[in-house]
Amino acid sequence: MLAVDLIRKKRDGGALSRAEIEHFIHGVTAGSLPDYQASALLMAIVLRGMSPEETAALTDAMVRSGVRMSYPDIGGVPVDKHSTGGVGDKTSLILAPLVAACGGYVPMMSGRGLGHTGGTLDKLEAIPGFRTDLSLDELRRALRTVGCALIGQTSDIAPADKKLYALRDVTGTVESIPLICASIMSKKIAEGIGGLVLDVKTGVGAFMKTREDSLRLAAALVNIGNASDVRTEALITSMDAPLGRMVGNSLEVIESIETLKGNGPEDLESLSVLLAARMLIAARVEYDEAGAERRIRGAIESGAGLEKFRAIIEHQGGDPRVIDDYARLPSTLEREDILATGDGHVSGLHAELVGRAAVALGAGRAKLDDEIDPGVGIEVTARVGTPVKKGDPVLRVHHRAGRGLDEALTLLREAIEIGAAPARQPLVIDRIP
Amino acid sequence: MLAVDLIRKKRDGGALSRAEIEHFIHGVTAGSLPDYQASALLMAIVLRGMSPEETAALTDAMVRSGVRMSYPDIGGVPVDKHSTGGVGDKTSLILAPLVAACGGYVPMMSGRGLGHTGGTLDKLEAIPGFRTDLSLDELRRALRTVGCALIGQTSDIAPADKKLYALRDVTGTVESIPLICASIMSKKIAEGIGGLVLDVKTGVGAFMKTREDSLRLAAALVNIGNASDVRTEALITSMDAPLGRMVGNSLEVIESIETLKGNGPEDLESLSVLLAARMLIAARVEYDEAGAERRIRGAIESGAGLEKFRAIIEHQGGDPRVIDDYARLPSTLEREDILATGDGHVSGLHAELVGRAAVALGAGRAKLDDEIDPGVGIEVTARVGTPVKKGDPVLRVHHRAGRGLDEALTLLREAIEIGAAPARQPLVIDRIP
Repeated sequence: MLAVDLIRKKRDGGALSRAEIEHFIHGVTAGSLPDYQASALLMAIVLRGMSPEETAALTDAMVRSGVRMSYPDIGGVPVDKHSTGGVGDKTSLILAPLVAACGGYVPMMSGRGLGHTGGTLDKLEAIPGFRTDLSLDELRRALRTVGCALIGQTSDIAPADKKLYALRDVTGTVESIPLICASIMSKKIAEGIGGLVLDVKTGVGAFMKTREDSLRLAAALVNIGNASDVRTEALITSMDAPLGRMVGNSLEVIESIETLKGNGPEDLESLSVLLAARMLIAARVEYDEAGAERRIRGAIESGAGLEKFRAIIEHQGGDPRVIDDYARLPSTLEREDILATGDGHVSGLHAELVGRAAVALGAGRAKLDDEIDPGVGIEVTARVGTPVKKGDPVLRVHHRAGRGLDEALTLLREAIEIGAAPARQPLVIDRIP
Repeated sequence: MLAVDLIRKKRDGGALSRAEIEHFIHGVTAGSLPDYQASALLMAIVLRGMSPEETAALTDAMVRSGVRMSYPDIGGVPVDKHSTGGVGDKTSLILAPLVAACGGYVPMMSGRGLGHTGGTLDKLEAIPGFRTDLSLDELRRALRTVGCALIGQTSDIAPADKKLYALRDVTGTVESIPLICASIMSKKIAEGIGGLVLDVKTGVGAFMKTREDSLRLAAALVNIGNASDVRTEALITSMDAPLGRMVGNSLEVIESIETLKGNGPEDLESLSVLLAARMLIAARVEYDEAGAERRIRGAIESGAGLEKFRAIIEHQGGDPRVIDDYARLPSTLEREDILATGDGHVSGLHAELVGRAAVALGAGRAKLDDEIDPGVGIEVTARVGTPVKKGDPVLRVHHRAGRGLDEALTLLREAIEIGAAPARQPLVIDRIP
């Protein structure tokens, strides 16, 4: 089988066979396929697409490029959640402990910030000492003893995805539903889960800007999961404004802990409760949504979720005292308020611009090897819907000695929209199935 | 300017600016653009196309990646011919000496065999001692003293094309009119010619199988040439059956010499005379086709063309005695005739299959580093239109100790079509302008 024949077939709009896709992924994994051939094929896939069968075969080949985990020594169905990326989306930190506190098992592998969106690993690493680089053996042990672990992708899990992703990033081949699907689902399937809840974001702060695109992506993801014996469902949720009040790593850890304490902002709490409830159902721990939500809310009220988060932090080498003493988290001394420029309501807070401002301050990476400053970020003091008068604070910027401040202020001023009271938008826009 | 932004722009169907195209070609030439980004962009160009302006800018950037020759010390307009590749097409060896014998200047840079088609350099190198690797200084000297040189592409001429071509070959990005145009025309423009005659082949043995595709390619090539001050015209000629009787390197040299001696097969002679006449017109040596053809036929009858070929061989280090003694050319002892399987006429002789059979015997390369055997080839003993009886020889295979013979015989038996007397096809199908 010649690589160039595969490339020409896809270039001319043909469907690649399972064997051809395996040949491709094997070549990527083994390093025997040159990058220039892989990138030509990737571009042909972006422009010609892939059938559901091809996408499933691609996902499967990527899963089998590494190990597919299993947990024979736990007494339940491991579950996970995956979000397509948003701004202020810290739900992973909240629902992993809540689900584990309710008897679920959560082997959660997360990523780092990408573009203007935040990453769970970056947030967790704001906690002093917290290790996200657990080995697969450590992950197994954590599941047995804590019921939950929050870790990064190890090199054993879908190694083909790691190589392909790095190549896609620099060759303009990221934006492709089949490639996005295979990348997301190969990692999730390899985790060894039996149930998966997808949070597909839609709106100005999401990678998918329209409801149609988000639904298309969600449907493709759900199909692949179910085809691989992972019970998969998707929520399409709004990402027009940041989720919750906090954007930035330490700030989001604080807001997550506050939510576990029962003091979270309403949108963040209700989305976390819903996602956690759906995970309990995917884990076959609960069978109806209202019952599952009651159980999750119970874990917040009893403090069981908070105690589980403490156990996770301890188990992964972090300092659990942060839960009671936020001063133990990195922070900055410098603050700058952005004030309303007129009277009215905050009618919009452009999530992508807020996310880009956070990156400018140092909360995310503009380049792959940029260092993250966990202390910086943006606090929303007047959320969408809040009535404001000219001069009222809308956003508070936590910056480090002015680094990136000018760019962040410009972006944030552009992000704030003052106008008439906005219609209340539902957080959950659609569901599959 | 980020390479990935260029790639994304073309991927999304945008037009690249002249500055962006120059950035791309500069990166390819300097080696600062990684191959994997170049190949992703090439695939996006294949699938999204390029406007005439983009194609012209690409050609121009490729010309300027190396030197653009000029010949201030000759008293005429240098001209060249370019064929898009065929089977048995040895016209270059015939018309270069004919045009030079009539006062034209021909700095002819040719290529090697590609796929099932033969290459002028491979044919010339069948002549013992013949050097095709002349430097640009040697080319200038040859033009001054002989009026003509037949050489390979030097590393100074359009180096970006050389790098891009190698990459296109292995990434399925050859088949693109803008990329083909820029590749052909950048080399021709850089040669320093003032006139160019294109022989765009069409038919089962050509890269362009249909008249429409061939016309589209021809029109694009002519546009680019004229935009770069090279007076360019195109003939669309038939490539359904091999041109002439001989396919293979030594065999084609012999047939070229026979044609210069006035004994060539009718199709090869008339196409050579027409192309040479058009070159004399492009060189402003003659002004009307009938007059130019008369002058070229005169150079055959007088032996001036043959003597010019002798001078070329001498000047380029070859053994000129091959002209009078074909035994000095490499040959094989082994022959195998393929006989007609029924009564009728030879109604077709599939040029691509004949070309592939020649490659199988060793006359061309299946892989880039394959060695060529100049002695092997295929002789057409009964051309298209010839009446045959069952058992009459149609093709004679010159093979070396059976190498590739089985594959060649299979292909050749498939290539021969015996049927009713075919309608006579015109050799020249169309012209631009």
